[in-house]
Amino acid sequence: MNERSRFEGSLPEMSAEAAAEQIPDDATVVTSGFGSVGYPKAVPLAIADSDKQRSLTVITGGSVGEEIDTKLIESGDMTRRFPYLGTQTARDAANAGEIEFHDRNISQLADEVRSGQFGSIDVALVEAVAVGEDWLIPGPCLGQTPGYVEAADELIVEVNRSQPIDLRLIHDIYCPSLPPHREPIPLDSPIGRIGKEHISFDPDKLTAVVETDRRDSTYNFRDPTETDRTIAANLGAFLSDETDRNPALAESVRIQFGVGSLGNALSGTLADIDIGDSELVYYGEVIQDGILDLLDEGRLAGASATSLALTQEGQDRFIANIEEYSDDVVLRPSLISNGAELIERFGVIAVNSALEVDIYGHINSTHIDGTHVINGVGGSGDFNRNALVTVAALPSSARDGDISRVVPMVPHVDHTEHDIDVVVTEQGVADLRGRSPREKADELISVAHPSFRDKLCNYVERGQQYGGHVPQALETSLSWPQRRQQSE
Amino acid sequence: MNERSRFEGSLPEMSAEAAAEQIPDDATVVTSGFGSVGYPKAVPLAIADSDKQRSLTVITGGSVGEEIDTKLIESGDMTRRFPYLGTQTARDAANAGEIEFHDRNISQLADEVRSGQFGSIDVALVEAVAVGEDWLIPGPCLGQTPGYVEAADELIVEVNRSQPIDLRLIHDIYCPSLPPHREPIPLDSPIGRIGKEHISFDPDKLTAVVETDRRDSTYNFRDPTETDRTIAANLGAFLSDETDRNPALAESVRIQFGVGSLGNALSGTLADIDIGDSELVYYGEVIQDGILDLLDEGRLAGASATSLALTQEGQDRFIANIEEYSDDVVLRPSLISNGAELIERFGVIAVNSALEVDIYGHINSTHIDGTHVINGVGGSGDFNRNALVTVAALPSSARDGDISRVVPMVPHVDHTEHDIDVVVTEQGVADLRGRSPREKADELISVAHPSFRDKLCNYVERGQQYGGHVPQALETSLSWPQRRQQSE
Repeated sequence: MNERSRFEGSLPEMSAEAAAEQIPDDATVVTSGFGSVGYPKAVPLAIADSDKQRSLTVITGGSVGEEIDTKLIESGDMTRRFPYLGTQTARDAANAGEIEFHDRNISQLADEVRSGQFGSIDVALVEAVAVGEDWLIPGPCLGQTPGYVEAADELIVEVNRSQPIDLRLIHDIYCPSLPPHREPIPLDSPIGRIGKEHISFDPDKLTAVVETDRRDSTYNFRDPTETDRTIAANLGAFLSDETDRNPALAESVRIQFGVGSLGNALSGTLADIDIGDSELVYYGEVIQDGILDLLDEGRLAGASATSLALTQEGQDRFIANIEEYSDDVVLRPSLISNGAELIERFGVIAVNSALEVDIYGHINSTHIDGTHVINGVGGSGDFNRNALVTVAALPSSARDGDISRVVPMVPHVDHTEHDIDVVVTEQGVADLRGRSPREKADELISVAHPSFRDKLCNYVERGQQYGGHVPQALETSLSWPQRRQQSE
Repeated sequence: MNERSRFEGSLPEMSAEAAAEQIPDDATVVTSGFGSVGYPKAVPLAIADSDKQRSLTVITGGSVGEEIDTKLIESGDMTRRFPYLGTQTARDAANAGEIEFHDRNISQLADEVRSGQFGSIDVALVEAVAVGEDWLIPGPCLGQTPGYVEAADELIVEVNRSQPIDLRLIHDIYCPSLPPHREPIPLDSPIGRIGKEHISFDPDKLTAVVETDRRDSTYNFRDPTETDRTIAANLGAFLSDETDRNPALAESVRIQFGVGSLGNALSGTLADIDIGDSELVYYGEVIQDGILDLLDEGRLAGASATSLALTQEGQDRFIANIEEYSDDVVLRPSLISNGAELIERFGVIAVNSALEVDIYGHINSTHIDGTHVINGVGGSGDFNRNALVTVAALPSSARDGDISRVVPMVPHVDHTEHDIDVVVTEQGVADLRGRSPREKADELISVAHPSFRDKLCNYVERGQQYGGHVPQALETSLSWPQRRQQSE
C-alpha cells in the first residue's frame, strides 16, 4: 500500500468540526483506544472546542489520552464514562462526582455493548490507519473496536497519518458472534492467527471520515527501584520453582503482566529466570517495552496482546522492524486477548499489581482507602479469575514505609481470596493455595513489611477471641484507612 | 447391561475395611461427589470406624454427605478439607479451627489438582455404578471425577448397587487436556454431546473395588415462602424485560440457578414467564426438583449440569423415566458444566443467592458477619464471573426483619461489584449496569427493606462528606456486624 491508499473509494471526508456536528448532544459514543493508544483525537478536540454543550456517555476500549479524558471533562461535554480512567483530570472528576464512572472488567465489554446492556449505541468513533467504503484497518490497538463498530448506529473514522499502515501486519481480528450463535474460538496457540487485518462494516453506517496526524501520548515508565528489583527476583524464583513442579508448564510458560511501571519492571526479570526447557510466551493485554526487550533478546517465543503501549523509543524501535516482529507478535480484540476461554485454554500465569492485600488474600487494586478511584480494574479481573496460577505482586509498604500494603481488611475488594493464589512482595513469596484463612494470614504476614508484622499478628489474635473461620476483630478491621479518612 | 455387569474382568474386590487399610495415614485423598450425591460412603465409614488415627487431606468434587463431612471429622481422621462444606459438623469444625478449610471455586479445581498445585495426590476414592479393569461408570454426579482419577497415584472404586446403571445414559464425559495441549472444547450447544459414558484409567492404578448399597442422602427443600414467591415474580419480570431487549436472548435463554431452597423456588418461576419465542435451557451445576418440573411441563428445551441433586421423590421420578429424560438432560464434568469457556459461549444468565449485598454491589455469600463460614463459594463465582448477565437474588432482610441484607459494606466479599449486574429482592429489581457507585447505592437502597432505607441513606450522606468515587464513612461501615460480634 502506498500513502494514498489510506483512503479507498468514495468516502464522506470532512473536517473534525463537521464530524463533531453529527454527534447528538446526549449520544452514547463508543470509541477505539486501549493502553492510551489508538484512540480518536481530532473529533473529541472538536467537540471540546465547540460552543455546543453536550452530555455524552463515552465508552472507550480501555485507557485513552487527554483528548478524551481531560478535554471533554474540562469542556463539560462528557458526563458518563466507562470502563477506565486515563488521566488525572478524569480521576478527579470521578472522585468529585462530576462524572458518573462505571468501573468494568474488560473481557466482556464488547459483548455487553453489542447485547444492548448499556442501551443503544449512537456513534462509534474509531481511529484507523486506513479506510474504505466498508472496511477499516485499526492502528496500534484493537481493544473493543470490532464489537463497537458492529453495535453502533453510525461510524466516524479518524485516519491517523502518524501511524504506519504496516501495523496491519500484526493484527489478527476475529470477533466471535453473540450467543446463541457463538462458536468455539479456534485459536490453539497463543500466537496463532485466526482472523483478518481489517474490520468490515455496513457501508451505510459510515457518516464521516476525518484525517489527522496527531500522535498518541506515549508511555514513560519510571526506572525500576531497588524494591521493584527485589520483587522481580522473588517472582523469578517462584516462577522457576513452579515451572519445575507444575506439569502444565513443562513445555510452555504463558505469562501475563499488568500495565504500569511495576509490570514493566517485572517483565524484565524474565530475561534471567531458569524455566528449564520450557518456552516462554507472553499472553496479555498490552505490550510494554520490557516485552520488546525480551523479544529482541530471543527470550520470548512470542507475544499476544490487544495494544502496543510503548515509550517513544519503543514505538520507534517496533515500527522500524515491524515485518520481523510480525512473525511473533499479534494484536487481538480484547474479547480474545482477555477472553476467559483463551486464558484458561492456554494456562496463563497472571501477574498483576495491587494497591494492597489483606491477610486473608483479598486484593484492592482500584480505590485508595476504599473511596478514591485511581484508574479502574482494567483487565486484571479477566486474568486473575481464569488464569492457571494467579499472582499479585506489590511492595509491602507505601509512602516511604509509613503505610502497610498488607492490611487486616481491604476497604474495597477487586479480586477475592478465591482467585488469588500467590502474593509476592520484596519480603518474599506467600503461596496461598490449599491454605485456610488462618494459614493464609501466617503466609501473608510473613511477606508484610517487618515494621507492621506485630500489629497484623495482634489483629489476628484479637479476631480469634471471637471464633470463626476467618478471624476478624471488626471494631478495628478498617482502623488504618479510617484514621486517614478522619484526619483529612 | 444386566446386574452382574457392574463388575467386569479381574478386579481387586475387597471389603471397605481392607480398602481403607491401603490409604496412608497422611494421604491426600480426592473423591467423587457433588451436590451431596455420588460420593464414596463405605470406605470413609471404614476409615472413621478403624482404630488407626489418620490426618487426611480430603478434596471432594463439591458437596458430600455425612459419611465424609461428619464421620471423618468426629473420628478426627480428616484435618484438611476443600472445596466445600457439606454438613453442620464440618462447618462447626472449620469455624472452630479444628480442620483447615480452603474455600475454592469449582470450575478449575480438577485442573489445579492435575497440575500439582495442591501437592501429590495419593488416592482417588470414587463411587461408580459399574467398573471394569480400566474403566468406570460414575453415578448421579460427574463433578471432578475424571480429572481426579487422572491425577491420583491409586484408585479405589465403590460400586453402589442402589444407583441404577442407566445413569450412564445422561453422562457426557469429556475431560480437556492440561495446557499446553488443551484444545477448544467442541461443545456448540448447551445440551450437545461430545464425550463418553465412562472414565478410562490406567489399570495399574486400581487397587481396590468395594461393593456397597448405601444410598445418598437426598435433598429436602423447604416450601417456598411468600418472600420467595415475590422474589421469583420480580426475577420473572426482569427476565421477561431482558429477553425483550437483549438480542443475545432472542432465540434462546440459557439460565443457571444456584443450589438451595431459594434457587429451587426461583426455578419454579420459569414456568410462567413470558420470553416470547425464545427457547429456555438450563445450563448449571445441579439439577434440582424445580428443573425436573419444568422439563415435565415441556417448558425447558433441555438441562445440563454436573449433578442430580434431587429429593427422594425427584430421584424416583427421574430414574423411572431416565430413557426419556436422557434426550434432553446431560451431566458433564465440572470443568465443562462450570467452565468459563462454555458459560461465556452460551451467554448464560446466572442467578445465585447471597447472604448480603452492599450498597455498591459487592456480595457476601459465604461468611456470616465476615467470620463464620456456611458452606463455601461453590460454583457461584464461576457463573457470576463469566455469565452474560449476572443476577443476585436474596430476601431484603433476615431473622424476621431484624437484620438488613442490604448493608453499607459487606464484611466478606465473594463476588465484586465488577461482576454483579442485577440484584433482585422481594422489594424490586436493582439494575446496576453502567451505573456509578453513587447510582448503584440509589438503586440498591430502593430494593432494601423499607425499615432500613433511612439508615442506608444516612450512611451514604455521611460518606459523601469525605469525598471520593465510593462514599464510605469508614468508622461505621461495619457497625452492624461489629455490634453482633461484640454482643456475643
